[in-house]
Amino acid sequence: MRRLEIIAVEGLGEIRSGDSLGRLVVEACERLAVALHDGDVLVLAQKIVSKSEGRSVDLRTVDPSAEASRLSAELDGKDPRLLELILKESRRIVAKGRSTIVVETHHGFVCANAGIDLSNIGVDHALLLPEDPDGSARRVRQDVQQLTGRAVGVVITDTFGRPWRLGTTDVAIGVAGFAPLIDYRGQTDPYGYELKASVTAVADQIAGAAELVMGKTSNVPAAVVRGCELPPHDGSAQDLIRPAEDDLFRGQ
Amino acid sequence: MRRLEIIAVEGLGEIRSGDSLGRLVVEACERLAVALHDGDVLVLAQKIVSKSEGRSVDLRTVDPSAEASRLSAELDGKDPRLLELILKESRRIVAKGRSTIVVETHHGFVCANAGIDLSNIGVDHALLLPEDPDGSARRVRQDVQQLTGRAVGVVITDTFGRPWRLGTTDVAIGVAGFAPLIDYRGQTDPYGYELKASVTAVADQIAGAAELVMGKTSNVPAAVVRGCELPPHDGSAQDLIRPAEDDLFRGQ
Repeated sequence: MRRLEIIAVEGLGEIRSGDSLGRLVVEACERLAVALHDGDVLVLAQKIVSKSEGRSVDLRTVDPSAEASRLSAELDGKDPRLLELILKESRRIVAKGRSTIVVETHHGFVCANAGIDLSNIGVDHALLLPEDPDGSARRVRQDVQQLTGRAVGVVITDTFGRPWRLGTTDVAIGVAGFAPLIDYRGQTDPYGYELKASVTAVADQIAGAAELVMGKTSNVPAAVVRGCELPPHDGSAQDLIRPAEDDLFRGQ
Repeated sequence: MRRLEIIAVEGLGEIRSGDSLGRLVVEACERLAVALHDGDVLVLAQKIVSKSEGRSVDLRTVDPSAEASRLSAELDGKDPRLLELILKESRRIVAKGRSTIVVETHHGFVCANAGIDLSNIGVDHALLLPEDPDGSARRVRQDVQQLTGRAVGVVITDTFGRPWRLGTTDVAIGVAGFAPLIDYRGQTDPYGYELKASVTAVADQIAGAAELVMGKTSNVPAAVVRGCELPPHDGSAQDLIRPAEDDLFRGQ
């Protein structure tokens, strides 16, 4: 019987700039008596990755540009210092609502506020996305391999909204050790019908599955997902980004 | 330690119109020695729900309208009979690509092809979404309660693409027994910062998590998700639909 398990990795403590997340997760798993297996997928919330990489910004040091101030007036007085950071972290603006701004980040992710968080970071501070989330994932994977001898997959997650549907889901912004897409195209169903449009974003589904034990207020920033049966592969979250020419919702 | 388990429910066999899915799932769980618990969430793929509700259509009986034929020419010769069904199942067209059509279904879901499948249904046949997926979910929940005495949540899933990101994820199109959104707004983080935009689409994450064991070719159309700790509630997948006035990507 196929069975998948998702284990909350509690007790990581407050993460500081320079911390090795791989080491901290391995130690937390040891305390929880969770032995990592080859093929486990380790899911880490972006906020602890960003903290470990020193991506916190003191908003009092941010001087908003004229464009950020203009946007602030347009967006219901949204903090111009936050808007300055959003513009710096973005390639382009995709859409604007009453006080909402959706951008394409330098990585290519389309999300509100360039993924910048004001929660769980301290008053007057903002937390930027990692500069290279795939690189962050690869480093964690290497550290875990060195410390335990186990080859795990790694997913760095962030919480994104979506068009048309309410509520957020966690998605993968960094991936290491497996392919984030499973391509069924060319396979046939039991009736001989060829599957034409079947590519599954398995890394995003793993991210959302892990959120079910991580939650938003439970202070569990990591999880082990066991039983995915994904072959080892040099994956990248860049594979999840839809090319512009194939995108019906490019926005502005 | 918080732990979530996802168990594939194999051995349902080929589903026919009129089958009671609740009974079939309970019997399959018994064969697998999986005892259902209160609070388990039973996830069912739309295709078996639609089959049990007789939503299969023989394409040879479909007479395309002038609009369907016009759309076929515009969409690279896409089957005009399929387009006729898509138009009938939709409120409006949201976007068109080279051979892709994204619509808003009568339920309010925005998806390609009005969720109509050509795979896993037989040559020259199409499978429509259930007319009332929340009602389908409620019936399964009632049947399971009657047969086992257990109060489970139920999610009916379908496989949707998304803008900006490649690959599909499974989402909830029908829900019973729990609230599909978890609203954290008003709660504060450990620094006292009030969470402002934190509403989690837990039903969609459950749908995606279950897909990890259901897969596209593995012929596992159901799963039990255990450990979500969701309080019983009269949920509806309609709660997941973003109101038009709050939608930055309304399309055409």
